[in-house]
Amino acid sequence: MRVSRQLLVTLREVPADCEIASHQLLVRGNFIRRVASGIYAYMPMMWKVLKKITCIVEEEMAAADCLETLLPQLHPSELWERTGRWEGYTQGEGIMFHLKDRQGRDLGLGPTHEEVATSLAKELIRSYKQLPVCIYQIQTKFRDEIRPRFGLMRSREFIMKDAYSFHSNEKNLKEKYDVMNNAYRRIFARCGIETVAVDADSGAIGGSASQEFMVTANSGEDLILISTDGLYAANQEKATSIAPEAKDLEYLEESYISTPNQNSINELCSKQDLDPSQIVKVIIYLAIFDDETEQPILISIRGDQEVNDIKLSNFLEINLNKKIVSLSTLSQEKLVSQGIKEIPFGSIGPDLKDLVLEGAKSWENKFLRIADHTAADLKKFVCGSNKLNSHRICISWESSGGLPQKADIRKANPGDRCVHDSKVRLIAKRGIEVGHIFQLGRKYSEALEANFTNEEGINEPYWMGCYGIGISRLAQAAVEQHHDDSGICWPLAIAPFEVIIVPANNTNETQRKLSEQLYKNLLEVGIDVLLDDRDERAGVKFKDADLIGIPWRIVIGRDSENGNVELVERAKKKTLLLSFEQATQKLLEEICLKKG
Amino acid sequence: MRVSRQLLVTLREVPADCEIASHQLLVRGNFIRRVASGIYAYMPMMWKVLKKITCIVEEEMAAADCLETLLPQLHPSELWERTGRWEGYTQGEGIMFHLKDRQGRDLGLGPTHEEVATSLAKELIRSYKQLPVCIYQIQTKFRDEIRPRFGLMRSREFIMKDAYSFHSNEKNLKEKYDVMNNAYRRIFARCGIETVAVDADSGAIGGSASQEFMVTANSGEDLILISTDGLYAANQEKATSIAPEAKDLEYLEESYISTPNQNSINELCSKQDLDPSQIVKVIIYLAIFDDETEQPILISIRGDQEVNDIKLSNFLEINLNKKIVSLSTLSQEKLVSQGIKEIPFGSIGPDLKDLVLEGAKSWENKFLRIADHTAADLKKFVCGSNKLNSHRICISWESSGGLPQKADIRKANPGDRCVHDSKVRLIAKRGIEVGHIFQLGRKYSEALEANFTNEEGINEPYWMGCYGIGISRLAQAAVEQHHDDSGICWPLAIAPFEVIIVPANNTNETQRKLSEQLYKNLLEVGIDVLLDDRDERAGVKFKDADLIGIPWRIVIGRDSENGNVELVERAKKKTLLLSFEQATQKLLEEICLKKG
Repeated sequence: MRVSRQLLVTLREVPADCEIASHQLLVRGNFIRRVASGIYAYMPMMWKVLKKITCIVEEEMAAADCLETLLPQLHPSELWERTGRWEGYTQGEGIMFHLKDRQGRDLGLGPTHEEVATSLAKELIRSYKQLPVCIYQIQTKFRDEIRPRFGLMRSREFIMKDAYSFHSNEKNLKEKYDVMNNAYRRIFARCGIETVAVDADSGAIGGSASQEFMVTANSGEDLILISTDGLYAANQEKATSIAPEAKDLEYLEESYISTPNQNSINELCSKQDLDPSQIVKVIIYLAIFDDETEQPILISIRGDQEVNDIKLSNFLEINLNKKIVSLSTLSQEKLVSQGIKEIPFGSIGPDLKDLVLEGAKSWENKFLRIADHTAADLKKFVCGSNKLNSHRICISWESSGGLPQKADIRKANPGDRCVHDSKVRLIAKRGIEVGHIFQLGRKYSEALEANFTNEEGINEPYWMGCYGIGISRLAQAAVEQHHDDSGICWPLAIAPFEVIIVPANNTNETQRKLSEQLYKNLLEVGIDVLLDDRDERAGVKFKDADLIGIPWRIVIGRDSENGNVELVERAKKKTLLLSFEQATQKLLEEICLKKG
Repeated sequence: MRVSRQLLVTLREVPADCEIASHQLLVRGNFIRRVASGIYAYMPMMWKVLKKITCIVEEEMAAADCLETLLPQLHPSELWERTGRWEGYTQGEGIMFHLKDRQGRDLGLGPTHEEVATSLAKELIRSYKQLPVCIYQIQTKFRDEIRPRFGLMRSREFIMKDAYSFHSNEKNLKEKYDVMNNAYRRIFARCGIETVAVDADSGAIGGSASQEFMVTANSGEDLILISTDGLYAANQEKATSIAPEAKDLEYLEESYISTPNQNSINELCSKQDLDPSQIVKVIIYLAIFDDETEQPILISIRGDQEVNDIKLSNFLEINLNKKIVSLSTLSQEKLVSQGIKEIPFGSIGPDLKDLVLEGAKSWENKFLRIADHTAADLKKFVCGSNKLNSHRICISWESSGGLPQKADIRKANPGDRCVHDSKVRLIAKRGIEVGHIFQLGRKYSEALEANFTNEEGINEPYWMGCYGIGISRLAQAAVEQHHDDSGICWPLAIAPFEVIIVPANNTNETQRKLSEQLYKNLLEVGIDVLLDDRDERAGVKFKDADLIGIPWRIVIGRDSENGNVELVERAKKKTLLLSFEQATQKLLEEICLKKG
């Protein structure tokens, strides 16, 4: 391809509405153009990048025995109603674009395809003999983000690879999950990007085990915790760790202390010469469930630790077997609207009586009581006395109403020791999620009554897995991980072109002829090469080449009269002066041999 | 690929809701599955067909210097408002799905991309030096069809290739149009389907010249007229021809004749012993324009000919330079609602006085008078006298108010002689439109103020062309053209697999081993082969192979003990008994050599 035919329009200045480097560079290099908020056109070079990624994904999916399909983008509402997701996805904060057609029927624009894939499987798969099956597609999906940002990172139209597997038993599902896990690692490695696989929360998709693949980058939206030995990594929402040791509480008799104006852990510690790890902090949450019950929850956690709302939410859903609609800490206003006045915020103890809930209008009148392990493990501790301006010291669980149900609901933190090896600590990194694999179990097959006949002739719902990769996001994440001050440094495998030939002066006959000759030679051996045939100054062409990030550049300048050219490795900014033949040979080695 | 992993689920019976053969066969062979009305999932084998077509299209587009992109599917309403198409596409009979996002902004689901492509060009192309440029994409588009039918033929989600070219002058546009025309012919030929290129009406897209590519098939929705010498073809909407000669009217004096109950041409002819070609038929149309004028139109046409509404509509729009909102013949009810009573339907002559329109509420009070050439060319004719039950005989244009504006507004018919050669006649075929190319001119660039600076430094709008192929429709049209009673006969280049190996009895060790060996051999030389490794009866496997239409089948049966296999050519139902080696050699010749 020749630059003169490539519609190469680059910007020197940084576009105003682009916050992160990868977004800026993709716009400046004319890889993407904004058409509306969160909606982008993929320009010719970007499309080449996306196709190269797609090709790698297709090869690895085929190797993992997945069948490629293309499923509809318009989904009938009935399908989503049967899994109970239509309302959540379309009402209030729902992120599914939806419309009525000319017949007045509701349709949604697919943000994910569990419903469609499962309903197809239901029609096609009748017997265990047909299992396992895995279908996938690479397609544009839609999310009505309220605040689209960072270019392709959080856009409203984006390209996903999503796969759905169907199994006759859980063991087989787990085997496939491992196969896909390995396929994902190969895909990202082949794309030339570094990723970390982390334990993740399953969120709105649901299911049991799930793992996210994160491209590490400082601008990443997700905080991930990684063990320094590389053996453990998790999203902070999901991460577990060993909490730091609590400081011993000097032996004292159980007693009351007066604590005026000591309503926070910090105030209490500084006035009473205590360490936060000696205190049991009590927080009241209100959970509203899908059966419309409103449950006050009394959480005890060590004073130096924080509650992880996602862990708490998952714990509640699993233990109570119902779905949470909202979860938040209790505020004074909510008390008033319930007709409750006397909760002594700042001095609450784990044994706060259920009596305080008496007369509440819509709340349950008993607390659900949960203690995080950090609190539960304390033999003696300081806590509120349930009277304003008063705490108890050297108290035990026995003398404060007994130990409630224990749970891991604390936020793991960088610096914590690891569960798998207490000598190893967690460090924090930021990451960009580019893949997510789930063991869905039977959630969707049960909802859609998608059954098969097992070996005993009995009908049962499939076991399912689902496996996503954000193709367009991955392309931008690669830029976020691979760029410098001059522009993008595309990994070779997904670069829009592998080599760019730049005649320093295109009006010089020798340079022009040699460039054309080299262009022809490289095309013949199957190298994806771009020839900058513009009559621009050399400096302009070099700047553009740096910006668009082609991995190898050959500069054909004055010294070409002596048969010499410059070979520049973009990422390393390393320049070699080589003969024409040496340069060609070097490119063959670096590119063709690696492609195999 | 092995059948056991392919999710091959075939139906023996014809599905109830499928009207045409290709739709039935694609459903029966599990190529497509209906998810909602007019919305289909492309199953694994269909996706392979679509990818093979896509690959051919991409190669030919690259050869025609087109750059591949991917444009958004969600379009902001503002863009379509600027070209004046938002209302027409979203209100009333509008076929654009549309919705409001969470910010309350209107978005449409792209049925076509002139607005998006032109607005991108406007941002990127400033100078004639950057022209010409042609961008294209292959993508799912949407149309809210009120009556989706025939499977992928008229579906609500469908895959299109659409290209948009930008030029600095009309000559350059016409050159590109020719290049694309040739590229289209190569694409269809390479896909193995026969098409006819026909002159077409430009419809809602607009522009001057346009050509449709039709797959000929009896179930086609479009009537096309083709000259027997193959040099001319046109959609009936657009076709021109030489009308049959009129019968001479025996010389007589101009006179009135009484014609009670002779209100139709047929009645008049049989009672008066006339030929329809001797009569001037007068029809009144009412055209409503976008400037809200309502214009009565008095059409004169020879009694044996019919008015072509599309030709009439185009003639009016070009001559009056405004857009038609509706065009229909006048009815008695409309007269009454305008307060007009006395139009002598059945006896109207070309000289009907404008006076009859006097007092009309909203209509213009003068007729626009048009004579089709067939009527204008008559020296003497029979026509109504503008009085009930009375006609005039042997009248001339001079004595009937003078010749009005002439136009070609008649429907061409099969049997008519051709304009390019009067010795050649037109025949009718039915066709399925799979491609359409347009010279758009400056319609969109003017509306969106998409300008470039020409060589003289003056700003002017681009010249544009656009070029579409219905990829998913083409796949089904190929089936409509290539099938028999047993199933599909895919053309080799777009077949889901090139060869299917069928061991007659998979439990027979010799047959199984030989099948596996052949499978391996063919894969190694790059043949796309399917192995039917199921433990089914041979008859079931043969029926499935016929249904799904793989071009070559190798049957490994009892005679394989002697090293012999059967090679079956699906389309010709021709069977050869060959040695294992001969069969392999024959396949290499038929497949690999043709691929080059």
